[in-house]
Amino acid sequence: MLYELIAESGRAKSGRFHTPHGVIETPVFMNVGTVAAIKGAVSAEDLLSIGTGVLLCNTYHLHVRPGDEVVKQLGGLHTFTTWPKPILTDSGGFQVYSLAKLRAIKEEGVSFHCHIDGRKIFMGPEESMTIQSNLGSDIAMAFDECPPAKAEREYIQPSVDRTFRWLVRCKNKLDELNALPDTVNPGQMLFGINQGGVIDDIRIDHARRISELDLPGYAIGGLAVGESHEEMYHVLDVTVPELPRKKPTYLMGVGTPENIIEAVDRGVDFFDCVYPSRNGRHGQVYTHFGKMNLKNKAYELDTRPIEEGCQCPTCRRFTRAYLRHLIKAEEMLGLRLAVLHNLYFYNHLMEEIREAIRDGRWESFKKETLDKLKSSEIK
Amino acid sequence: MLYELIAESGRAKSGRFHTPHGVIETPVFMNVGTVAAIKGAVSAEDLLSIGTGVLLCNTYHLHVRPGDEVVKQLGGLHTFTTWPKPILTDSGGFQVYSLAKLRAIKEEGVSFHCHIDGRKIFMGPEESMTIQSNLGSDIAMAFDECPPAKAEREYIQPSVDRTFRWLVRCKNKLDELNALPDTVNPGQMLFGINQGGVIDDIRIDHARRISELDLPGYAIGGLAVGESHEEMYHVLDVTVPELPRKKPTYLMGVGTPENIIEAVDRGVDFFDCVYPSRNGRHGQVYTHFGKMNLKNKAYELDTRPIEEGCQCPTCRRFTRAYLRHLIKAEEMLGLRLAVLHNLYFYNHLMEEIREAIRDGRWESFKKETLDKLKSSEIK
Repeated sequence: MLYELIAESGRAKSGRFHTPHGVIETPVFMNVGTVAAIKGAVSAEDLLSIGTGVLLCNTYHLHVRPGDEVVKQLGGLHTFTTWPKPILTDSGGFQVYSLAKLRAIKEEGVSFHCHIDGRKIFMGPEESMTIQSNLGSDIAMAFDECPPAKAEREYIQPSVDRTFRWLVRCKNKLDELNALPDTVNPGQMLFGINQGGVIDDIRIDHARRISELDLPGYAIGGLAVGESHEEMYHVLDVTVPELPRKKPTYLMGVGTPENIIEAVDRGVDFFDCVYPSRNGRHGQVYTHFGKMNLKNKAYELDTRPIEEGCQCPTCRRFTRAYLRHLIKAEEMLGLRLAVLHNLYFYNHLMEEIREAIRDGRWESFKKETLDKLKSSEIK
Repeated sequence: MLYELIAESGRAKSGRFHTPHGVIETPVFMNVGTVAAIKGAVSAEDLLSIGTGVLLCNTYHLHVRPGDEVVKQLGGLHTFTTWPKPILTDSGGFQVYSLAKLRAIKEEGVSFHCHIDGRKIFMGPEESMTIQSNLGSDIAMAFDECPPAKAEREYIQPSVDRTFRWLVRCKNKLDELNALPDTVNPGQMLFGINQGGVIDDIRIDHARRISELDLPGYAIGGLAVGESHEEMYHVLDVTVPELPRKKPTYLMGVGTPENIIEAVDRGVDFFDCVYPSRNGRHGQVYTHFGKMNLKNKAYELDTRPIEEGCQCPTCRRFTRAYLRHLIKAEEMLGLRLAVLHNLYFYNHLMEEIREAIRDGRWESFKKETLDKLKSSEIK
């Protein structure tokens, strides 16, 4: 059994997911290392010191640079980055739609021009699986189409049907790759991805069809792409119950601390988001009482850490005044320290969430934490 | 006695210099943290892990941002940065000449426009000492004029005469500041600076005059500003013997590993240079066999560390292949890891130099190390 369900409270759940590189305690926040490194000068060694459970790397970026064949020759992402714990790779699909130019979607896959050097690339389910196999992640994501949030039924239904056919091809291809003698990580697992925009019946029907394939886990994609928070929560309300409860559920690309708590409350296990690293690089840092802008003049002589009691490497050593100075002076160290704090904040929040569910106090934890986050009472 | 002379070999010497924040073992390389941080996302905590003996901060930059009064209110540079060991501040003079626009030099000091916001600033000996006192460094540098390398005698002689008068004013002002009740670091020491371009008799006469002031240490300034290596070595040959042997001698802004070895051989104790951090940020890293450009295609599949046997945090964990990828992808982590390696290389080279002098094998160490550096036989 790959997924052990440890504790539940309503729809919220906490589990343990077994992978070739160790156990993932859920709910978990995956730290986004696009090109096999977290933006903000954060190394694999740093990740160990801030409680990271899973590293997420981007297939498209690594295919373009340094090339997945290069990563394979170097022993796969774990050896390349020196990160010893689980790694998830996305399918490349999202970047094809968001970054690449002049794409053409056909039944076989997608043709597009690389955003770095303009060369033409073709990627379909088989290509995505081959690249992810070369990267050697523990969890490979299915190659799907992520349609625009507010697309019409006439666009979404055929797109979702094709995404389902692509999922079957992904499954067959990964089985084949895992059986090859020189596969980097023969225990690599495939997660399917639910799509359907904000159209309930398409979401539900697709969730049921992918669940029948009995994959190790399932993601909900196509959210956090322009719809409102209420629409997103509604999609979770109708879709998560249609996915296997005794398998991990991954909400892709989400989100704020509030989003994560609301989604955990609806049964989600896995999250990923660029907010903590991107906001850190802009001097925005997270606390249990809301976000702080370190550039604020109010912190010029403030000798307190970002958040009192925080055990991250930044708060254990440096003052708001020093961080403010570094960020105002555009010193790389300021960005690094802010990103380290933010990732620790997210990882630690997930630890608090897991403890609350496992200790049977999820409801009160949820209410108190959301109240504090909304208060914005930074001292 | 502030300076203990431990060992000598010809003019080369190794000593111990006592400061309010501990002992500096010499010869030493001071790591340049311009605005109270090393460029390349390197923190005070990192400096402790790469064998840094002294942190150098730039008075002009800190006066402009965050302001020396702010740093004073925050307890001085040691508290601000959390760096517990000795700090040296330059006088601001060099930046006034190299960065600021529309300067006007008078007997009182220099008027100039700030390179950040254009506001008019006046700095003379008293202002420089006051700023450095607010910063609370262990070693304050005298406010001097650094004339162009190849200026004529007609320019250099009056400049050096004024620099001498400024030194007397610096000494008087620092004595006064150190006696105030709220001084950050009342044990702050003043180093005088020898100038004179490449004109032997002016250098020698000035060295003799400043030596008579019996300051805790002396620097040689105005080198590495455009003259040849041979001219620089010649200035050291004629000037160092005129400075007190039982006090530290500091060669400002120098230099390559070869420059440092040649200068140690001529009796220099202290060095500082932006090369290791600046070159690291461009993917250039140091080894005992010369510099490597990590962007080189040859390292694409190279799983060795930058230098076999190196004990820096980068070489202990990461491959050339991973570093090449990070630097090609312009990931901040690549710059950080290259800078950490380079600073460790410089700090460790100084440790090797100290051991060689103290163990009585300086001559053979010098020859072997220079031969290796010149070989450029990077494997």
